[in-house]
Amino acid sequence: WFIPSSRGFASIKKPASLFDPLDTFSERHIGPDDTEASKMLEAIGYKTMDDFIDATVPPKIRIASNTISNESIKPFSESQLLAKAKALGDQNKMFKNFIGMGYHCAVIPPVILRNVFENPAWYTQYTPYQPEISQGRLESLVNFQTMVISLTSMDIANASLLDEATAAAEGMVMAFVSANSKKRTFIVDSGVLPQTLAVLRTRAKGFGIRIVVGDVQSLLRLESSSDVCGVLVQYPDVDGAIRDFGEVAEKTHAVGGLLVAATDLLALVRLKPPGEWGADIVVGNTARFGVPTGYGGPHAAFFAVKDKLKRKMPGRLIGRSRDAEGNSAYRLSLQTREQHIRREKATSNICTSQALLANMAAMYAVYHGPDGLKRIADKVHGFTQVFVDAVTRLGYKLVNDSFFDTVTIDVTPILASAELLHTKSIEAGINLRRVDDKRVGITFDESITSLDLVSLINVFASAASATPVSLVDLSEPNKPTIPEHMKRTTPFLPHPVFNKHHSETEMMRYINHLASKDLSLAHAMIPLGSCTMKLNSTSSMIPLSWPEYGNIHPFAPYDQVKGYDNIIKELEEYLCRITGFHAASLQPNSGAAGEYTGLCVIRAYHESRGEGHRDVCLIPFSAHGTNPASAAMAGLRVVAVKVHPDGNLDLEDLRDKAEKYKDNLAAFMITYPSTFGVFEAGVQEACKIIHDNGGQVYLDGANLNAQIGLTNPATCGGDVCHMNLHKTFAIPHGGGGPGVGPICVAEHLAPFLPSHPVMPIKGKQAIDAVSAAPFGSASINIISWAYIKMLGGKGLADASKIALLNANYMAARLSGHYILRYKNENGRVAHELLIDLAEFDKAAGLKVNDFAKRLQDFGFHPPTCSWPIQTCMLIEPTESETLEELDRFCDAMIQIRKEAENIITGKQPKENNLLKNAPHTMSVMTLPEDKWKRPYTREEAAYPLPWLREKKFWPTVSRLDDAYGDLNLICDCPSVEELASA
Amino acid sequence: WFIPSSRGFASIKKPASLFDPLDTFSERHIGPDDTEASKMLEAIGYKTMDDFIDATVPPKIRIASNTISNESIKPFSESQLLAKAKALGDQNKMFKNFIGMGYHCAVIPPVILRNVFENPAWYTQYTPYQPEISQGRLESLVNFQTMVISLTSMDIANASLLDEATAAAEGMVMAFVSANSKKRTFIVDSGVLPQTLAVLRTRAKGFGIRIVVGDVQSLLRLESSSDVCGVLVQYPDVDGAIRDFGEVAEKTHAVGGLLVAATDLLALVRLKPPGEWGADIVVGNTARFGVPTGYGGPHAAFFAVKDKLKRKMPGRLIGRSRDAEGNSAYRLSLQTREQHIRREKATSNICTSQALLANMAAMYAVYHGPDGLKRIADKVHGFTQVFVDAVTRLGYKLVNDSFFDTVTIDVTPILASAELLHTKSIEAGINLRRVDDKRVGITFDESITSLDLVSLINVFASAASATPVSLVDLSEPNKPTIPEHMKRTTPFLPHPVFNKHHSETEMMRYINHLASKDLSLAHAMIPLGSCTMKLNSTSSMIPLSWPEYGNIHPFAPYDQVKGYDNIIKELEEYLCRITGFHAASLQPNSGAAGEYTGLCVIRAYHESRGEGHRDVCLIPFSAHGTNPASAAMAGLRVVAVKVHPDGNLDLEDLRDKAEKYKDNLAAFMITYPSTFGVFEAGVQEACKIIHDNGGQVYLDGANLNAQIGLTNPATCGGDVCHMNLHKTFAIPHGGGGPGVGPICVAEHLAPFLPSHPVMPIKGKQAIDAVSAAPFGSASINIISWAYIKMLGGKGLADASKIALLNANYMAARLSGHYILRYKNENGRVAHELLIDLAEFDKAAGLKVNDFAKRLQDFGFHPPTCSWPIQTCMLIEPTESETLEELDRFCDAMIQIRKEAENIITGKQPKENNLLKNAPHTMSVMTLPEDKWKRPYTREEAAYPLPWLREKKFWPTVSRLDDAYGDLNLICDCPSVEELASA
Ligand SMILES: Cc1ncc(COP(=O)(O)O)c(C=O)c1O
Ligand SMILES: Cc1ncc(COP(=O)(O)O)c(C=O)c1O
Ligand SMILES: O=C([O-])O
Repeated sequence: WFIPSSRGFASIKKPASLFDPLDTFSERHIGPDDTEASKMLEAIGYKTMDDFIDATVPPKIRIASNTISNESIKPFSESQLLAKAKALGDQNKMFKNFIGMGYHCAVIPPVILRNVFENPAWYTQYTPYQPEISQGRLESLVNFQTMVISLTSMDIANASLLDEATAAAEGMVMAFVSANSKKRTFIVDSGVLPQTLAVLRTRAKGFGIRIVVGDVQSLLRLESSSDVCGVLVQYPDVDGAIRDFGEVAEKTHAVGGLLVAATDLLALVRLKPPGEWGADIVVGNTARFGVPTGYGGPHAAFFAVKDKLKRKMPGRLIGRSRDAEGNSAYRLSLQTREQHIRREKATSNICTSQALLANMAAMYAVYHGPDGLKRIADKVHGFTQVFVDAVTRLGYKLVNDSFFDTVTIDVTPILASAELLHTKSIEAGINLRRVDDKRVGITFDESITSLDLVSLINVFASAASATPVSLVDLSEPNKPTIPEHMKRTTPFLPHPVFNKHHSETEMMRYINHLASKDLSLAHAMIPLGSCTMKLNSTSSMIPLSWPEYGNIHPFAPYDQVKGYDNIIKELEEYLCRITGFHAASLQPNSGAAGEYTGLCVIRAYHESRGEGHRDVCLIPFSAHGTNPASAAMAGLRVVAVKVHPDGNLDLEDLRDKAEKYKDNLAAFMITYPSTFGVFEAGVQEACKIIHDNGGQVYLDGANLNAQIGLTNPATCGGDVCHMNLHKTFAIPHGGGGPGVGPICVAEHLAPFLPSHPVMPIKGKQAIDAVSAAPFGSASINIISWAYIKMLGGKGLADASKIALLNANYMAARLSGHYILRYKNENGRVAHELLIDLAEFDKAAGLKVNDFAKRLQDFGFHPPTCSWPIQTCMLIEPTESETLEELDRFCDAMIQIRKEAENIITGKQPKENNLLKNAPHTMSVMTLPEDKWKRPYTREEAAYPLPWLREKKFWPTVSRLDDAYGDLNLICDCPSVEELASA
Repeated sequence: WFIPSSRGFASIKKPASLFDPLDTFSERHIGPDDTEASKMLEAIGYKTMDDFIDATVPPKIRIASNTISNESIKPFSESQLLAKAKALGDQNKMFKNFIGMGYHCAVIPPVILRNVFENPAWYTQYTPYQPEISQGRLESLVNFQTMVISLTSMDIANASLLDEATAAAEGMVMAFVSANSKKRTFIVDSGVLPQTLAVLRTRAKGFGIRIVVGDVQSLLRLESSSDVCGVLVQYPDVDGAIRDFGEVAEKTHAVGGLLVAATDLLALVRLKPPGEWGADIVVGNTARFGVPTGYGGPHAAFFAVKDKLKRKMPGRLIGRSRDAEGNSAYRLSLQTREQHIRREKATSNICTSQALLANMAAMYAVYHGPDGLKRIADKVHGFTQVFVDAVTRLGYKLVNDSFFDTVTIDVTPILASAELLHTKSIEAGINLRRVDDKRVGITFDESITSLDLVSLINVFASAASATPVSLVDLSEPNKPTIPEHMKRTTPFLPHPVFNKHHSETEMMRYINHLASKDLSLAHAMIPLGSCTMKLNSTSSMIPLSWPEYGNIHPFAPYDQVKGYDNIIKELEEYLCRITGFHAASLQPNSGAAGEYTGLCVIRAYHESRGEGHRDVCLIPFSAHGTNPASAAMAGLRVVAVKVHPDGNLDLEDLRDKAEKYKDNLAAFMITYPSTFGVFEAGVQEACKIIHDNGGQVYLDGANLNAQIGLTNPATCGGDVCHMNLHKTFAIPHGGGGPGVGPICVAEHLAPFLPSHPVMPIKGKQAIDAVSAAPFGSASINIISWAYIKMLGGKGLADASKIALLNANYMAARLSGHYILRYKNENGRVAHELLIDLAEFDKAAGLKVNDFAKRLQDFGFHPPTCSWPIQTCMLIEPTESETLEELDRFCDAMIQIRKEAENIITGKQPKENNLLKNAPHTMSVMTLPEDKWKRPYTREEAAYPLPWLREKKFWPTVSRLDDAYGDLNLICDCPSVEELASA
């Protein structure tokens, strides 16, 4: 029952010196050892790695081997890295934050921390495109949607967006598009968070939306109503006031606009939900539901709408559907893959979102349930009341009479300016919000203890030269501060799932039960082309659980965040060195956000040169759907460029188009190696053509894993590129997010990198913010920083080389059985390979999906299917997979090929066969004899290869019935009534 | 597909005051909420919890309700507890330890830390008595055995013992027993660790063994050879010398004795293994293979023997066998349950051992493989050489010319005394071993970096007033310091499992793959009677991963361990308050070790009063096997006491025996509530009988979970009791260990609690050590400390009440279907219930095992089987299980009862039926139609109840063939050759 090792007796290398550390990361990160690498090189006909690389990566674009070396990026051993991370963490000061402004320190239930956040079975999952092996996280995301729907009282919610600010921007665009892109004015109330406003401004530009900011009531009166497409309000507002926007809603609807409300789920436990006062779109952040603040992210934003808007929602939507056996099953109902269909007509480019964080927030609601949430809301609210009582008694003035957890305090009755309060609060280890000279803001959250409350009050007492109070002096509040008509009266979260898993034992079982349905990297390779599903090492993840990183507010003063600052600077430097560029921005929190940012930077550059009219963006047909979508969002006109049948860019067509549009040429977007998995030798020439015609080159860095130490985007000719840190740089995919999509730019573009309204981080020419936090999903940058540091220069280059070798080995093994679509003149693919299954459809009606589903029966996650070519599979092994695992996968593919042959030759029928019926579940396996009407045995279905006896992974539902699901979008958990009637 | 909740909408309680914390532990630890508790009370006919408790716990033994209350034990919320643990951790100073003496600071591979040590799927498992749902950890324990066998070159090894000292004691006893207990002299070389010697002395006493200590060569010459049963040597010895004991082995064998060698696995990577120079028994500690030092434990000791001794081995032995389908499968071949058969004839009482730590050590070997281990050994050895070069150059004198990682340095050529060195080293944050005035000891381990090496050398340089060195001054050693003939020449760990999982990805998959085969608390309840498998909360486990607790050496100076000291003192106080006793010892590292310690204390007490002759121990027939075994080991004669058919102790028989033996009566051992699960009303009378006759009462506290806040061992009449912290106080069972078995004693016994030779912790009358470390498995005491603090007095009492209620509810539900063996006059059981299945054997040949295996098909771990009564199951739900889970289990039992009825009535055949064929595996489910020769459907086999569709757990092998296994003890991993020929 053991699998004999193809690895032989793998050797672990002796260190060069006795004094070197032994826990070197690269030998643990890279799957194949030297013996395996040699075997693979031999199998594909090369003597040395250098020979192989020379045949694979075009000589013209190669960089000097010392560019990325242990001298330029010094390797840290795993324990050295952890010690460094600890030392830097100690430089972040853990103040108690009352800053608020959308960020709250969360209390993470330990059972969720350990079993979700620290569990590779959750964090190494891919986006649930394969529902049969993803029912666990699909269920959890439905819980997330249900939680949002129920608390906001809206009809439908998606499975997370990137952050509140971008969610608000999506809302604005939805309002704009709903009015057929004809009405250009979007009103933003002055109570909206400043970072949200900044992101709206950026986003408005590309769409030509006109933003007006001010008191929403007056603006609705003043603005030409025929041009208003929508309104954004914050509830409660940034200063803490609970305002009744019912009338605003009516007026907005009266002028044919949509009302977007940004809100806070914890407040909604006690406040009348936006769905009950007329909001059409409700957005916000769910971080305070048990997700670390982490210096700004990652956190899951939410997006909920009224029924009429549901089919236009950005992001992913999970629905309940049914499987081939007629059983209930979850699936992605709307997916961001729509971009691949709508391309430049898409109005949102969101792809990676915040699945892992959404799952954590949903689990938090499951764990606490409605009563637990009420308890928490009441505490936070109660503390705010006690605070207000105390400081108004001291003579301070409360600015907002109504509040949930946030108040603004006017200090002038007592103090000349607020400065003294800030000095005293800093001395007490407390951060307050700086509203202005005279006013400070205070926001309470779940993490504030009664002792913290006392110290806070005493900061105010001390500034007022009053005697300090102690806990016994405080009494429970009795005066209501939520206006009666703004109180929530409707129940929420009545669904069973939110009302049973309240003991830690039950919660642990629920979490682990869901995880047991899902295939992750903890089980087998996930060879998703373009997604680079590699090792997410424990050492790089460990610091994320430390409060020194988790509990930092993004708007904390700089001298409290030296540790983060150091990591961010160092990471930026590394990324510049790796890409060959000059400067970086870590603000974009997904690859698509990076694309968008890069294009905005290019536009700003053109504008700065008086060439603001340049608005044409050339994009090859083969590009990822986010490219044209991002271009459109940046206000660019997309012109498609042809691709040769051999996979290479059609340089003639490029030249024609570049010249044709040369007066308006803004940019060219290219993925390198291409999405077909080939290193195009003509990339530099292509870039030159663009430059010659006044354009800038945007390089989509999704495939950077093929390049490191061998070439780089600058050498290829680009001006800007984004990286997917959640691909190349080992941030786990988390079942669909988080991600980080930083951009690196050449020197001439550096002045335009995005700034931030609250924490100015860049110069005057900077574009406005593209995401809510100054450094985006700041905390997970630690992972990529650790990854780079632990591999060091040599390890990074080795990783790329092995990624190429692994892919070429697989190409060699599979090419006798499948049609390999593209390779270079030496017969080499890049880090991934595209096999074409069109022949099987022709011969026997077998689709890509049939092969994919059958792969599940072998315990594998299918590769990327039908992208970038409908009839293909795109296979990317990454460097982390061993030869044994590659062989297992190839064996499975070859076995399926044999099964397909039986169908082609008619040995097996065309409809009822191993592929069409795949995947096979345990339930199907136990069908009674008379219901097992299949022309193959149960063993052939379940155990087509011998090692499956040991390593079987069971899909928990049969193939999803997509047609049914598309007609029946059911996006929340079943309720008690529904269960009772089931 | 949802399970409708029997919980209804569970309510989470509002705190009493706004200022109270919300993350209170008891509502998360205790499964049923108030609604469920009410339902259960109603179902069994009580209005209030008080009425129920009054009917369950005899009034005579009740204690005042304020004894255990929130006033006497103040509750901490989860976050308060974590903050407290952090603050105390900061009081432990993390010095670099060169103390050695059997304890090394380990480097824990992060992938093992996260996926084993911090993974409830591993740590909440039970001992693998049910092999069909335990193949993962069985395989891992076989890896452990193989690792030990291979490195020691012995024939067979067990699956861990408690620590090196007790393992050596087991070796001594094995030598003694092998010579038919006739030869009483056991020679201990003076190079043996002092703590080992102390434990040997304690153990020798009970067996009447005479220990002589000195130079083993001379002693073998001097001692009357006819009386020598064995010899113990340390290799390398405590001072670091590598001595050739080949001749000692020959001489020992010549006099008919056995040679026991205590050794170090890392040294054996480079040294000639004891199996090659004649050792018969080899023992040691595996902690340096990736297990935190933790102030002394827990760590897995090993025990390996030559083939001829294998059937006499103490502890658990895992073997390869085959299942009902003829497939290979692992099982426990020899189990400590033998004690239940051999009872007072057993010469070892070990039951709980160190499974989790053994798994970690085995995984470490899997991760590093032979080459990785060589690399580590060479580094440790190389550093020692570099150090020796440097300090001898300074003029210090090396005492031992040969060494692996430990040297003794004579300071006199330079310094008057060693004190200055200690002062300087403490200043440098370094601990050295204090050998004596003139000599210091230095031991290197994997955690020492080259910078640490430099600081160490500079401590010596500074004391010698020499100039400090830096790293560049050091050069690699070239002079061999391992004598040529003592070098290892034989290969080790050639097995595939140690040669393939070397990348982190592969390792993570291997760990998770094994875990996926095993049923743990993360899946479902484990209602093992007498084992109290309750929640092991995350909050209580988190601090164990902190280096402030993990990296502390047990012999570190007291002022470096204030945090531990505080926790230990507080825990001792809590345990005294809970048991009603006066003083405690945390040294015993298992329940059985606690029993043994308690009895030794009783003997010391008698001796102190001139009554050393008292040597009779009364024990009821129903006692756990460890009781008589412990008594025998303490040198007591066991006299059995009868039990009435109603489950109660036969007080008349007790009185008769007590009077009969009154001149020699030493002790009476009793479990309360009894192992039959009843609160005997006569317990106080029984204790009085004993006291009246000069004896002391030992209370086995395994069932303490039924008592807390309601009664206690002191009130019941006992003088001493042990607790199983791994039962009542929530230390996870870890798949068979670790455990902690502290004892609490009445005031008159306090002076006799065990001391320690290196760190004297008790007074003059103290007995010698019972385990290697002063505070036993010190680090995991944190878990029980946290458990007690988080529940607080009220929570502790509530937990006991709900444990009683849960058991009584189950008794009520099951009693219509099964025969409930014992209950009190009010019809109440205690915290567990015994159902008798004898009727089924009579009616249809169905055994307890058939019911147990069938339960696996329902996704449940079977209850304790055939103990304490052969035909029974002992079911203990604990307070952590919700009503829904209890109902699920009862439903399963009732369904099985129906299936049994079909067999009894002949509807199903007696041999080929659902019970006899259970459990059913996935492989069996996929048998082809013509091989499915069973008179029931696959669905009936796999999904007998509807919720199994959602919650199915598959056993990975069919029922084990015990007969085959007993004949074929194969206890190591399959080798390549074996795999090739398979
Ligand atoms: C080529 C390419 N570009 C862009 C993206 C978008 O990145 P993200 O999902 O992080 O938004 C992807 C994602 O798969 C991609 O493959
Ligand atoms: C009643 C009783 N006594 C003693 C023991 C021994 O405890 P340990 O396994 O910790 O040695 C047990 C263990 O199951 C037990 O049930
Ligand atoms: O997620 C992707 O669309 O690749």
